This record gives sequence, C-alpha cells and structure tokens, in this order.
Amino acid sequence: MLLYDNTLSGNCYKVRLLFAQLGLDYDRREVDVFDRSDRPEVLGELNPALRVPTLVLDDGSALAESNAILFYFSEGTALLPEDRLERARVLQWLFFEQYSHEPYIAVARFWAHAGITAPAAERQAKLRGGTAALKAMEGHLAQRVFLVGQRYTIADIALYAYTHVAPEGGFELVPYPAVGAWLERVRQQPSHVTMTG
Amino acid sequence: MLLYDNTLSGNCYKVRLLFAQLGLDYDRREVDVFDRSDRPEVLGELNPALRVPTLVLDDGSALAESNAILFYFSEGTALLPEDRLERARVLQWLFFEQYSHEPYIAVARFWAHAGITAPAAERQAKLRGGTAALKAMEGHLAQRVFLVGQRYTIADIALYAYTHVAPEGGFELVPYPAVGAWLERVRQQPSHVTMTG
Repeated sequence: MLLYDNTLSGNCYKVRLLFAQLGLDYDRREVDVFDRSDRPEVLGELNPALRVPTLVLDDGSALAESNAILFYFSEGTALLPEDRLERARVLQWLFFEQYSHEPYIAVARFWAHAGITAPAAERQAKLRGGTAALKAMEGHLAQRVFLVGQRYTIADIALYAYTHVAPEGGFELVPYPAVGAWLERVRQQPSHVTMTG
Repeated sequence: MLLYDNTLSGNCYKVRLLFAQLGLDYDRREVDVFDRSDRPEVLGELNPALRVPTLVLDDGSALAESNAILFYFSEGTALLPEDRLERARVLQWLFFEQYSHEPYIAVARFWAHAGITAPAAERQAKLRGGTAALKAMEGHLAQRVFLVGQRYTIADIALYAYTHVAPEGGFELVPYPAVGAWLERVRQQPSHVTMTG
C-alpha cells in the first residue's frame, strides 16, 4: 500500500498509528500541506477532496478520509467493537472529531506552524470551538476510561491525534484532567508510535 | 424512538428520509436552530456536541451525528453495501460531507435563512469551499449513477440533504449537470420524502 502522507498532519498520523498497532506495512509519500498547488496533479485521480491521508490499496484503488481508513482497517480487530450500537458510537465520535474538533484545534495549530496570523474574530472563533470540543470530551471522559465501550478503539486514535498536540495551537490542556489522563492511557497502548516517530 | 429534530436542518432531514425509506416509526421534538441557548438543558445528557439530530433509542440510550445514525440503521439493508471496501467508500463520502461540504454549503444557507450578513471574506471562503465540494461531486458523478457501487446508498442520502437546497445559500447548480441528474435519480427512489414533507 502507498500512503500519501504528511508528518505534521494529525489526520495522517491516525493512519500511521493504526498501521503500527495492527502491524501493517506500507510505503509513504510526503505531500506538502503548506503549498497545495500540486494537489490536483498528485491526488486528483485518487481523492476528489484532494486531502491527505489518501491511501492506494494493493489492488491500485484508492481510499480517502482518515476516519474511513481507520474504520476499514479496524473491522474485525479489537480496535472496533463488534456490537452494532457500539460501532455506531465509535462513528459518532469520528464524526464529532471531523466536524466539532479538527476544524478548530487542528486549524489553530496549523496557523501556528504556518506562521499565519488570522484576524482576531477568526482566532476567537477557533478558540471558542476548540474549547467547546475539549469540554465535551472532558465531560464524557470524566466517567469513562476510553471514549466507547470502556476499551481502546479507533475513536481514541482519531481523537488523540489532534488533542495531544492541541497546545501547539494555543489550547492549554491543564483545565481538562480527564482528557489528560485519557491521553496518557492512549500513549500506554501496545505498539504506540509518536507523531514524528 | 425520539428524534430531536429541526425542519430546516439538512442533517435532520437525512434521518427523516432514511426512516421513511426503511419504514421506521419515531416521535420527533423540534429543536430551535436559531436560539441555541437551551441546548445544554435539552441535549446535554444525550449528546456532548449539543447538535441535532440526536436520537433516543428504544432502550433510552442516545445516538448522535447524522451520518452515524444513517450507518447504524442502514446496516443489513440495501442502503449500505455488504462489501467491506464499498462500506468504507460510503464512509469516505460521509466524512467528505461533514468536512468539505456541510461547513460551506449548509452554513451559507443557514446565514440566508437567519438573515445573517457575514463579513465579505467569510462569504468568499464559504463560496470557495462550497464550489470545491460541488466540483468534486460533479467530477465523481460524471462517470457514475450513484456515489458508491452504482446503487443508491446512505452516501447519496447524506450528500443529497444539503446539495439539493444549495441554491438557498447562493450556490447555482446549473454548472453541475451530473450533480443535477443525480439529484433527480435520488428523488425518484421509492418512499422519497421532501425536506418539509
């Protein structure tokens, strides 16, 4: 398999972390996240959304969207519940991540890495949205060990990716002790790899 | 089942359309999308993201995120492929919808309905993002009858919801003839219901 990847991207890191934990081999090709001008040429035939990660499977066909890739490869493993309702709750958290978490916490971090100073109103909107996401996680994790079904699943992988680097975008995690304890539990899972390793 | 619902919301409409096509009965409770001040009280115990749709199942537990609800109820029906890779491609389009489509096309429409005049830069950003989403759909549908596997699935339900009302947010659909033909095919499916019906 060939992963169109980026080292800085939490969305790509999700896939690398899952593949490490499942022991899957793949090649990787780094795609620029700052200069996106070559995206139509590089990804146009593979992914209509022109995003990374995009994965080329062994049969030559492509699969995209980080959380769809997580779901595909975790089916039939301990990282995705067999119970239909628990599987749907995993998906609930995956959609939460892409709609209510990533657009705030990942984008604020991207701005910091890219040296972008957004207008004050936009920065405030990112801060509000990201804080709401972290509060939602804190409330949920206060009573739980992992996000779904009291065990480590791809929901934890998906939310870990950008939450653990949220401070890089200006989100302090100290006010969220249940999130902090959960991050540590995720890090303690067998075969965990870091974003840069 | 009890659906926390809103008549104007495309995300809620997805669930109503699926339930109509599966012949599922449910009660509904309208939740305001303009004044969201009662959300913590109404939805706080049910959905950390405080969004609609939120569904209370017969056992009293809750399931949220429109596309997670679609997946849960379509498993084992003709609306979700049995093939694992095709199922993942359905998910790819569901995540595309929530990340690359809804935040532009649905929000521009919401602004129009709410009488909000956003700053010019924000309106331009919505126009750019929504146009990119429609172009991605047009390119994909130019060679296909439905989004995944040449048959009607929940991917079509999810993308139909806000695409067919995109003009309400200022997106003309005339430049996207393959999208237009696909919208008509979706409307022709058995037991189709409209957003207001």
